[in-house]
Amino acid sequence: MLAESDLVRNLNRIAVVLVRARNPNNIGAVARAMHDFGFSDLRIVNEYAMPLEGARSAVDASSVVHAARTYGGVAEAVADCALVVGTTAVGERDLQHPLLALKDAAPKVLATLASPDKSGRVAILFGSEKTGLSNEELSHCNWLLTIPMHQREDARHLSMNLGQAVAVCLYELARERPLARVSRPTEEAGAADMERLTGVLAEVLEASGYTRHHPANSGLEDLRRLVVRLRLSRTDAPVWMGMLRQILWKLRN
Amino acid sequence: MLAESDLVRNLNRIAVVLVRARNPNNIGAVARAMHDFGFSDLRIVNEYAMPLEGARSAVDASSVVHAARTYGGVAEAVADCALVVGTTAVGERDLQHPLLALKDAAPKVLATLASPDKSGRVAILFGSEKTGLSNEELSHCNWLLTIPMHQREDARHLSMNLGQAVAVCLYELARERPLARVSRPTEEAGAADMERLTGVLAEVLEASGYTRHHPANSGLEDLRRLVVRLRLSRTDAPVWMGMLRQILWKLRN
Repeated sequence: MLAESDLVRNLNRIAVVLVRARNPNNIGAVARAMHDFGFSDLRIVNEYAMPLEGARSAVDASSVVHAARTYGGVAEAVADCALVVGTTAVGERDLQHPLLALKDAAPKVLATLASPDKSGRVAILFGSEKTGLSNEELSHCNWLLTIPMHQREDARHLSMNLGQAVAVCLYELARERPLARVSRPTEEAGAADMERLTGVLAEVLEASGYTRHHPANSGLEDLRRLVVRLRLSRTDAPVWMGMLRQILWKLRN
Repeated sequence: MLAESDLVRNLNRIAVVLVRARNPNNIGAVARAMHDFGFSDLRIVNEYAMPLEGARSAVDASSVVHAARTYGGVAEAVADCALVVGTTAVGERDLQHPLLALKDAAPKVLATLASPDKSGRVAILFGSEKTGLSNEELSHCNWLLTIPMHQREDARHLSMNLGQAVAVCLYELARERPLARVSRPTEEAGAADMERLTGVLAEVLEASGYTRHHPANSGLEDLRRLVVRLRLSRTDAPVWMGMLRQILWKLRN
């Protein structure tokens, strides 16, 4: 399992390339997802105006936005990359490239990063929400990936929100990241605790009259199985014990 | 592998529960992600005003938003669910629940849906972006899931954008969905094509003078290995063949 620092060193060699992204909110959302998952190399291809100023003020992922570079074309933006992957929503377009589902694409990207010379960068291209990547832009790609979506009959709504699509792709690429913090393992209470609890429960049922009314359910073995099935934790067992003891005391006085 | 209709029938039994979501844009983004991945059961817990009107006009996922139901509290919203899962960004909070990484949580959710009686619903709770779920809200949950993120030293930016977090969770739950459309397998050209191509290449190199200048690289075996390594597709091979034949014709005339 990779340490976080090694993981991030790899992710830093993945460039997220936004092609013709003109909406600063979208760029901001992409930067935030990159920041969340530990990516840093944002590249923006845009032949017209530079929408970065809007994004710079829009998000709490300023380090990513400030380091972003802009390019006039795809060729220039991916010149230093050993692998160029395009993303597509797979509409009516006639695909000329091999197409992989995201979960199968991620291991191929990570394998390129792990190649022996350790210098390979990978570019992942995202087109505009409305039109996706053009055929010219796709021609720079080695292959394509897609996020499998629910296909409706009208097939109208086939593209995802850009920020969500990028977040899902980056999640898959960093999916093996271990949890930074592990929950305390809920240790189960031991057999001795269970046995004490069974005993007090039997006394409570006796004192309350339950045993007399339901003798078939009140055998010690029945009660023990019932208590064991609770799978109480080591911390919850004494709490229940205290409750039962109090109830027993009240029943007897 | 599940057919799309079976998959969606399962996903329809997963309720996305937004607790104290007040921003219509966030609700709209969540509805769009649900629509994309084939989920339909959106529930909103909010003790104050109903922000659904804003979301209704905001998104192209109107079927999800129109079917959304609102509740005054978590207990009411999850009353019909066999399993209630909370989401957390794991900040400084002292967790009282078992915590699973998303990739380990999804199979447990899907196993509940696949249980023999087929009636179990699952609720997945998302808190507000700023504060997450409160301890009272978490107390309704059987266990928690988290999306592993890059932990920075300042640990300041620990929560994801709500729409992105929901998209990532729903993606993981539907991750095994097969591609609706498979790219044409790129059939490789056969040995006969390769042999013809090798032959024409040899003639071109001879006619151009290359063979005379580089005899060590021009043996038929060398050329055949070079051509085979191209791994040309069945459709690309004749294109290259045509190019080489034209070049050969020009060289000889």
